Amino acid sequence: MKVLALTCGDPGGIGPEVVVKSISAVHSMGVVPLIIGPRWPLNRLSDLVFESWTPDTVFELGKTYHLDIGFHFDVPVIGQDDAHNGQAAAAAIEDAVRLVDLGIVNGIVTAPISKMSLQLAGIKHTGHTTYLQHLAKAPYVTMGFYTPRLKTVLTTVHVPLKKVSEMLTHQRLSETLDHAILFCAQLGIESPKIAIAGFNPHAGEGGMFGDEEQEVIIPFVAEKRGLGIAISGPYPPDTLYFRAYEGEFDMVISLYHDQGLIPVKLIGFHDAVNVTIGLPFVRTSPDHGTAYDIAYQDQANPSSFIAAARLAVEMMA
Amino acid sequence: MKVLALTCGDPGGIGPEVVVKSISAVHSMGVVPLIIGPRWPLNRLSDLVFESWTPDTVFELGKTYHLDIGFHFDVPVIGQDDAHNGQAAAAAIEDAVRLVDLGIVNGIVTAPISKMSLQLAGIKHTGHTTYLQHLAKAPYVTMGFYTPRLKTVLTTVHVPLKKVSEMLTHQRLSETLDHAILFCAQLGIESPKIAIAGFNPHAGEGGMFGDEEQEVIIPFVAEKRGLGIAISGPYPPDTLYFRAYEGEFDMVISLYHDQGLIPVKLIGFHDAVNVTIGLPFVRTSPDHGTAYDIAYQDQANPSSFIAAARLAVEMMA
Repeated sequence: MKVLALTCGDPGGIGPEVVVKSISAVHSMGVVPLIIGPRWPLNRLSDLVFESWTPDTVFELGKTYHLDIGFHFDVPVIGQDDAHNGQAAAAAIEDAVRLVDLGIVNGIVTAPISKMSLQLAGIKHTGHTTYLQHLAKAPYVTMGFYTPRLKTVLTTVHVPLKKVSEMLTHQRLSETLDHAILFCAQLGIESPKIAIAGFNPHAGEGGMFGDEEQEVIIPFVAEKRGLGIAISGPYPPDTLYFRAYEGEFDMVISLYHDQGLIPVKLIGFHDAVNVTIGLPFVRTSPDHGTAYDIAYQDQANPSSFIAAARLAVEMMA
Repeated sequence: MKVLALTCGDPGGIGPEVVVKSISAVHSMGVVPLIIGPRWPLNRLSDLVFESWTPDTVFELGKTYHLDIGFHFDVPVIGQDDAHNGQAAAAAIEDAVRLVDLGIVNGIVTAPISKMSLQLAGIKHTGHTTYLQHLAKAPYVTMGFYTPRLKTVLTTVHVPLKKVSEMLTHQRLSETLDHAILFCAQLGIESPKIAIAGFNPHAGEGGMFGDEEQEVIIPFVAEKRGLGIAISGPYPPDTLYFRAYEGEFDMVISLYHDQGLIPVKLIGFHDAVNVTIGLPFVRTSPDHGTAYDIAYQDQANPSSFIAAARLAVEMMA
C-alpha cells in the first residue's frame, strides 16, 4: 500500500482547497492520501472525515489521514503574504520529507507556496525545488514539467535572463541531461528521443545570432551522442516545442525558465504538472500559484493538483 | 481595384509552389494577384494562365498577372542555398517595392527567402524585414505576428539573446509600442488592450530575478499610462501568452524573438502570419521557411501563405 503525502502549501492561498477537492480522486488512484497542514482550513473547506496521523497509525485504503502541523498555525491570514503562513508552509514540507525518510510516505504532492511568505518567515529558498533539494541533501535537482503531449526540463530556473548564458556550462547541461533521461525512465518512456533547444534565435543561425550553440551546446550534443545517448539539437526554439507537441520528441531540454514554461503553460494551463527530478523520492506539484484573490471562496480548480497526484502515483509505481 | 504583389521568394524552395497554390484563394478575396518571380517555376508547378505584366498593363479582376524578373533566373538550383537563387529572391522584392512606389501595387505578400542564399548573393540583410526597411527608407520597422487569437510584436529580433538586455532602451520600447498601436489600428481593433511581457522569470519577481523590469520596463509603462495609453505590464511571460490567447489582451509586446515566437508557432504553426509594421505599405508573409526538403514535390501547404494574403487584403482595406 502506497501513501501519498499532500502538503497544503501556503494556508492563506488556495492550497488547502485544492487538496481537499482532490481527495476522492486520490482514493480512486489506489493510494492512501495523507494531508499535511493546519487543521482549521480543512474543516472550514470541507466535510471530509480525517483520521489524525500519529506514529502508531496503521494506514487503511479508503481512509483519509491528516498530519496536523500544530494548533499554533490555526488560523491563517487569508489572501496575503504573511510570515506565519510561510512558517506553516515550510512546516508541512519539512514534515513530508521526514515521513519519506522514515519510509512512511512514498511520494509528495505539494500545493502552492508563496515565495514572499517564505521570505517573510526568514526561509532562504525561492521555491519548493531548492527547499526540497536542501532537505533531501540532493547534490542537484532539476525542474521538469509534464503535460500529456509536451514534457520538458529546465537547465536554469529562477535566475536573471541575462545571466543564463554564463550558466550554460558543460557540467550543468550534463546534469540536466541525466535528469531528462531519469524523468523519461520514471515516466516509462522506452528509448526516449531527447531534444535540446537552442539558446539564440534560430539556434544562432550558424553563429550569426550568438555563439552559445557553437561554443557549448553543439560540442556537448556531439559528445553525448558519441556515448550513444539519443539526444539531438540544438534546434531553433521557436519551432521545437511545436515539433515535440506533435510527437517528434519525448523530452525537451529547455535552457531557461520562460523558454520551457511559455509553451507548457500555453498548452497545459490547467493540467501541467511540475516535477522535481533528482530527489530520492517522487515529488510533483500543480503548476499554479497561491491565487490569493480567490482563496477560501470555493472557486479553486483542483484539476492541476489532481493531475499532479495522478502523475506522482504513476511515477511511484 | 487593389493589386496584391506575391513575391516568389527563394526559387529553390517552396515559395513558388505556395504562391501558385494560393492564386484561386486570392481571387476570391476580390483583389488582383501579381506574381513576381522567375517564369520557369510557375510553369513547372501549375497550369495557371498568366498575363505578363508590362508598364502598359491595365489590370482586370479575375486575371492573374506575372512580372518576370528575367530569363537569366530560369532555372533555379532546387533544394539548396545558392547565390543565384538569392539574387532572384532579392530581385522580386526590389521589383515589388518599386511597383508600390509607382502606385501600381497596394500590398506585398512575400514567400520565404533563404538568409544564406541572400548572403551568398552578397546581400547584407538577414531577412525580409530589414531588407524592406532599407528599400522603403523607413526609419524603423517592427516584426509583428498575427494569429486569430494571439497577436504580438517583437522588440528585438535577430540578435544574440545575451545582448537583448542592453537593447531594451526606452526609445526602442517606445518605437515598438507605437507600432503595436499602429498594428492594432490596421487590424481594426478599437481601444486595444496592450500588454508588455517581462524579461525575466516571473517578470523579475520584484527584482529578485533581474532588474530590467524595475529599471526600464516599469517606468516606461508608467510614463505611457500617464499619457493615456492602454498598456499594462510587465507581466510574467510564462502566463501572459495564455492570458492573451484567452482574450484578456489584444496585443502582446514581446521583448525577444523566441519569447514571442514560441507561443505564436505553437498555436499557429500552420496559419501564423508575419507582418512588417512601419513600412509605407502593407507587407505580410507566411511564418515558415523555404522547406528545401520538400521543394518541387507538390507537398507544400499553402494555408499559411493564403492566411498572409487574406490578412494583407484586410489591412489594405
